[in-house]
Amino acid sequence: MGLVISQLTIDASDPVALARWWADALGWQLDPDSDDEEVSISPAGELVGGWLFIRVPDAKQVKNRLHVDLRPSDGSDQDTELVRLLELGATRVDIGQGDVPWHVLADPEGNEFCLLLRTPSALAELVAQEHAADSGPVEVQ
Amino acid sequence: MGLVISQLTIDASDPVALARWWADALGWQLDPDSDDEEVSISPAGELVGGWLFIRVPDAKQVKNRLHVDLRPSDGSDQDTELVRLLELGATRVDIGQGDVPWHVLADPEGNEFCLLLRTPSALAELVAQEHAADSGPVEVQ
Repeated sequence: MGLVISQLTIDASDPVALARWWADALGWQLDPDSDDEEVSISPAGELVGGWLFIRVPDAKQVKNRLHVDLRPSDGSDQDTELVRLLELGATRVDIGQGDVPWHVLADPEGNEFCLLLRTPSALAELVAQEHAADSGPVEVQ
Repeated sequence: MGLVISQLTIDASDPVALARWWADALGWQLDPDSDDEEVSISPAGELVGGWLFIRVPDAKQVKNRLHVDLRPSDGSDQDTELVRLLELGATRVDIGQGDVPWHVLADPEGNEFCLLLRTPSALAELVAQEHAADSGPVEVQ
């Protein structure tokens, strides 16, 4: 008994272009078995754990109910990654988030995603500190 | 330079109920720091790599442009997992998929997801065979 997550699948008007965009953004690779209708990307050619972009006829209509939250990896920081993503063609999006420590962005087809503040190490340090202080629930940003 | 995927975030009308449902479905754990507005689940209390359910006022309107594809884990199979998911309260969804070897289902808030045919090991075996036969692109189902 049990399930594994095979992939996150993303409807796209242009799956090849959108997959290439995200491969650049994430530093992932395109699966060489991809075609024009279905393009998969993964961290290093893995069969499970990547993203699959599939061509659909309908355009995006409303804010996505699912989105991905990204963090700067250890050794990078939020400002560096924000500049890099904007240079790649990400756009800033206002979904009424107000003054928050993360950036709400969209990919070239308008799919919203967030760039959070902390690296994984900085997050782990914060959570350890908060738990040591027993200060209640931790805002994981 | 670089990004890591912190989490998949899912808009929800009832984040507690939906997070509990998916924790049961995936065999994951609820983060004890969660509250009624934001509930996170992860495979084993991990800080990065889980899902975050957040309360939003708007209901789901159209088919999600992002969805998750699940596989039966090694040792299980598609039929077993289908029965288990339907018993948990998943519903079958027709998005025009026709006669395909995967099942299109929805969670209690209508978020579409797919249950694929093969376990990770069976998939790896298929891909190895197809590559050995040099028979062109592999349909990864």
